[in-house]
Amino acid sequence: MSHGRFEGVLAPVLTPFDAEYAPHGDLFTAQCKALLDQGADGLAVFGTTSEANSMSVAQRLDLLAGLIEAEVPGARLMPGGGASALADAVALTGAAVQSGCRGVLVHPPFYYKGVSEDGIFAYYAEIIEKVGSADLDVYLYHIPSHTQVPITPSLIARLLKAYPDSIAGLKDSGGDWSYCAEIISAFPELNVFPGSEVFLLDGLRAGGKGCISATANVNVSHIRALIDGWETDQAEVLQARITKSRNTIQAYPLIPALKALTSHFTGEAAWARLAPPLAPLTSEQQAALLAALEPGELTIEGQGGAT
Amino acid sequence: MSHGRFEGVLAPVLTPFDAEYAPHGDLFTAQCKALLDQGADGLAVFGTTSEANSMSVAQRLDLLAGLIEAEVPGARLMPGGGASALADAVALTGAAVQSGCRGVLVHPPFYYKGVSEDGIFAYYAEIIEKVGSADLDVYLYHIPSHTQVPITPSLIARLLKAYPDSIAGLKDSGGDWSYCAEIISAFPELNVFPGSEVFLLDGLRAGGKGCISATANVNVSHIRALIDGWETDQAEVLQARITKSRNTIQAYPLIPALKALTSHFTGEAAWARLAPPLAPLTSEQQAALLAALEPGELTIEGQGGAT
Repeated sequence: MSHGRFEGVLAPVLTPFDAEYAPHGDLFTAQCKALLDQGADGLAVFGTTSEANSMSVAQRLDLLAGLIEAEVPGARLMPGGGASALADAVALTGAAVQSGCRGVLVHPPFYYKGVSEDGIFAYYAEIIEKVGSADLDVYLYHIPSHTQVPITPSLIARLLKAYPDSIAGLKDSGGDWSYCAEIISAFPELNVFPGSEVFLLDGLRAGGKGCISATANVNVSHIRALIDGWETDQAEVLQARITKSRNTIQAYPLIPALKALTSHFTGEAAWARLAPPLAPLTSEQQAALLAALEPGELTIEGQGGAT
Repeated sequence: MSHGRFEGVLAPVLTPFDAEYAPHGDLFTAQCKALLDQGADGLAVFGTTSEANSMSVAQRLDLLAGLIEAEVPGARLMPGGGASALADAVALTGAAVQSGCRGVLVHPPFYYKGVSEDGIFAYYAEIIEKVGSADLDVYLYHIPSHTQVPITPSLIARLLKAYPDSIAGLKDSGGDWSYCAEIISAFPELNVFPGSEVFLLDGLRAGGKGCISATANVNVSHIRALIDGWETDQAEVLQARITKSRNTIQAYPLIPALKALTSHFTGEAAWARLAPPLAPLTSEQQAALLAALEPGELTIEGQGGAT
């Protein structure tokens, strides 16, 4: 991993779907470019917010190929590479490395519950060995609410001992600041990213490297402003601004709310569609969410569209 | 669905893996034939016990093609067709129908938790509509311990109303007899199978059609004996025999225990291997499990091999 590690704010980009629930590649690529233009340091495509596990491996590889073809730099890309099936995780992670992506965000397998640390270690070890590239930087993805398989400190220690050049960082979507602080403190060699901007200032002060947050889909410039200004006397004000917006949005189911907002502010219906089993906000929820936001509160509003 | 529905005992066949965690097709096909010879009415390949979600779609389709090529009758096959990704579920379910399989066992998507009934309904509806075949018989797969998404009575009612010719039955792996009894009573048009032979006699007496049980991999003849004899005065004795064996085995992690037994009694090392994140029994656990079983207690012992 000679290419340097991620820092700053990464957007786990939403995925637009057509009426057949197939991803809409052109809209997706355009939105990735727009988020970079608005200040995203990187794009954590194919994560939880992206509904990646509601897409086939082939659909994800097609979207990635579209980004590369459109000259989105691999240095800005951290695709999701995790899967329930080892063969799928190897295919996704390997393709990301082949495409020049700076990192890959890898969640554990998530069908079986109560699995052993040996089993999770074997999954990551097999991915790293089968991909077999010095260019692979794995970012561990801790999201126990969805996987029910936590990334424990003892697992991290084992992985770092076995693969010190491949384990680059961790995204913490557990929502528990004490876990995040523990990981930052125990593993200074990792680039750690809280999964919500609510913890951004605390994270930066503790030694974290930024955040990878769903809300970056609609508010990336304001999140970026705190990363640029966290050592100034404006830090608390900048944190309060993005915390307020986050809390307003996550009063609703988060992914449907972000898709409703993206569809509203870009004027593109495909953003409002969710792949089963997720379902859109009701029109009442959408109206209430929009009413709860102040005009200009979200940075996606500057992107243009049918506002 | 002009082909009739499943009844009796179905084995959710274990999957042997090579050292690269790729499925071993020849061993798998031979074991499927052996289970039919021992009295299995059907083979629920690619279920939870099969580690199906630890295999790619292509790996599962290859195994299915191998079974068809080896002339395992489609009338005896109920492959798993569920997946987190709708496109994968459509591909798996469609291939099963194209291959002449009598039914498809479809679990709900399992990455997102707390999803709405509308979202789960949409998933099943999309599969049925996209496969678009009168030959499709869907068996709903209730396994909330793994999916965290239950198959509720109200969901079943909606699906039966919308697709009365496609919703054929249900496998209940919830482990709660009261749920199973409720479904059998409320939906007499469904062929309902408890997921454990512990509930086999209760199920048959209530109107269930048999069982689809992991333990059928090693004890199918004894389970079949109860299905053949449940209306005789031997029923309680036959139930007690298989309950005792089940309880002995499930004192250990079930899938690793079944693979250890299959490897031991067939002499094939590939059966002992589990795909990450599952891991094998320790040698101490394996020895204790074998010691807890009486000689001749399991019907796999008659299959031959390095016993």
